[in-house]
Amino acid sequence: MTDFTQQDFRCMARALQLARRGEFTARPNPMVGCVLAVGEEIIGEGWHAEAGGPHAEAAALLAAADRARGATAYVTLEPCAHTGRTGPCADALIRAGVKRVVAAVQDPFPAVAGQGFAKLRAAGMAVDVGLMQDAARDLNRGFLSRIERGRPFVRLKMASSIDGATAMTDGTSQWITGAAARHDVQRLRALSGAVLTGAGTARADDPQLTVRDTFPGGRQPLRVLLDSRLTVEQRARMLQDGTATLVFCVDDSDRERFAATNAEIVKVAAKDGRPSLPAVLEELASRQVNDLLVEAGPTLAGSLLMADLVDELVIYQAAHIMGSQTRGLVVTPDWTELLDRLPLRITDRRVVGSDFRITAEPAARPAHTGN
Amino acid sequence: MTDFTQQDFRCMARALQLARRGEFTARPNPMVGCVLAVGEEIIGEGWHAEAGGPHAEAAALLAAADRARGATAYVTLEPCAHTGRTGPCADALIRAGVKRVVAAVQDPFPAVAGQGFAKLRAAGMAVDVGLMQDAARDLNRGFLSRIERGRPFVRLKMASSIDGATAMTDGTSQWITGAAARHDVQRLRALSGAVLTGAGTARADDPQLTVRDTFPGGRQPLRVLLDSRLTVEQRARMLQDGTATLVFCVDDSDRERFAATNAEIVKVAAKDGRPSLPAVLEELASRQVNDLLVEAGPTLAGSLLMADLVDELVIYQAAHIMGSQTRGLVVTPDWTELLDRLPLRITDRRVVGSDFRITAEPAARPAHTGN
Repeated sequence: MTDFTQQDFRCMARALQLARRGEFTARPNPMVGCVLAVGEEIIGEGWHAEAGGPHAEAAALLAAADRARGATAYVTLEPCAHTGRTGPCADALIRAGVKRVVAAVQDPFPAVAGQGFAKLRAAGMAVDVGLMQDAARDLNRGFLSRIERGRPFVRLKMASSIDGATAMTDGTSQWITGAAARHDVQRLRALSGAVLTGAGTARADDPQLTVRDTFPGGRQPLRVLLDSRLTVEQRARMLQDGTATLVFCVDDSDRERFAATNAEIVKVAAKDGRPSLPAVLEELASRQVNDLLVEAGPTLAGSLLMADLVDELVIYQAAHIMGSQTRGLVVTPDWTELLDRLPLRITDRRVVGSDFRITAEPAARPAHTGN
Repeated sequence: MTDFTQQDFRCMARALQLARRGEFTARPNPMVGCVLAVGEEIIGEGWHAEAGGPHAEAAALLAAADRARGATAYVTLEPCAHTGRTGPCADALIRAGVKRVVAAVQDPFPAVAGQGFAKLRAAGMAVDVGLMQDAARDLNRGFLSRIERGRPFVRLKMASSIDGATAMTDGTSQWITGAAARHDVQRLRALSGAVLTGAGTARADDPQLTVRDTFPGGRQPLRVLLDSRLTVEQRARMLQDGTATLVFCVDDSDRERFAATNAEIVKVAAKDGRPSLPAVLEELASRQVNDLLVEAGPTLAGSLLMADLVDELVIYQAAHIMGSQTRGLVVTPDWTELLDRLPLRITDRRVVGSDFRITAEPAARPAHTGN
């Protein structure tokens, strides 16, 4: 393991900060930041703003111009070695006379995957890998999930009262949470390549699942609906606004009904009469979805949790007690013992307007001792 | 309204801090603190440690000795004018030659209720009332509730997962929360004159409801059980440990069964076949209970909430999702619309060990618009 200097940490921290600027725009590409430094001085900065645009290294080299000779380049991800929509960054760094490259993580993307580092080393450059790699992996956990696991990073958004209720028994739920929490959900949508919901929510709420608030450079996520038997109405808002919505089913005999809508019907393998969740996630990864936001009812939310397919939970908790004439957060028939409960590792807690937001990751269950 | 000086605020803040030292011991008396000051200098401090012991003023006068002449006395509650277990503090202040008294609040206790102030003024003393009165009232909300409303301050303690579950469907609930939260509940018990539970919890958990952890000078709260038809077993731990437990019922025909236990059976008015909750609270106030801690199941908790008899909720939230094969926090059949939910004013949120504690007060419901 290389001994990194304080200057190395300072420059990589800055590169990570720059990378984050692409959070609403870089997808399906990873967010990448680059800092060029000579001694204590930063002589060029860059980040990857959008697919087809300059990579972070190219932007930093452009800023540094002819001062890059002899510099150290700090990159949050391995420089590419292949010609994609832009030329290989490894070649550009070599051409500019950079003498050392410090990278946070190797790019798992098959066309890179160590070949960028190999090319740099072959040109005589010093290459140090692994500086602040946890932060760098966290930044691109969606992209890394798609490449490494073949499925998007799955974020489950939920909203409830303090006693875990999401609606009254009659279904009334507007609004459990306040305006600030709803705006925060818009931000989560804008960060995501796709937003997933189920047929029950589509029927009950007729949601648009679009980003209505403005985020700099933000694009609309792909809308995804799970509807086993294509029961959703043609006039549903998410099928009528001219932008594609992906509809997963297990029985597409009613497919023709959706010819005049913007639905793209995809039939997938069934599990218990419903779309196989791993198959759905695999299909979304093949469509370059890095981050999937799930905004679903308790049945689909529970199914994802029981199948261990949720990577992060974002729970908005309203300061209310709603009582027992209500519906709960999740439907989890398989969890019958206290040991079945899902332990969470809380990663963030904060006030969002009148509500409280809890961000958490599923943690390992204690081993069942058996009976 | 008197214009209080910075010195006035400084001394009253100190008096409030001193008063708090009696939190585990002063009951059923109020917590009171007293500071004697001459100019910038504090020449005596006192607080009321326990019933029968010196009042705060007497303790401060003792500390100041003959320097009290011409001093200002800061007291968090009106000095008493009557002879109780100790002589009247108003007389002691006059005798010591104190020239000004600043009090946070008037004592609503009928034997005081302005007579202390009147006596001081009659002796030619300057008396200013109302400095930091919100903090002073908050400190003694239990005592003030008992005197002003004729019922204890009611604190409802609950523990659940993040999705609001308190037990699996089969009743398994040990333990939802961790050791630090359970210790914190011991502290709440030690702060309370009584701890209330219901027959269901008594049957299911056979709790002792005693303070087992050590708090300085702490005493055991009175245990209170609501058991409409006296169905609890004689061998229940809270009836067999030699310390009195109050059992409220509406049908005491089985009273004889408890002759050999430490139960004191009290028959009260019924409402819907159960002990009338206002009647129970009134009886507890008559027994000088200032603060009542409720550690009950979802039915009794829900009944108290529906009856608007809860003053504070303390909710320990464990970092788990327990799912739908579970029991909820409260049973509230009367709340059928979203407008029926109980809005909370959050007064504190903090991590307690592995859990999260939310402290809140019921807030006003938005007015129903009617249908």
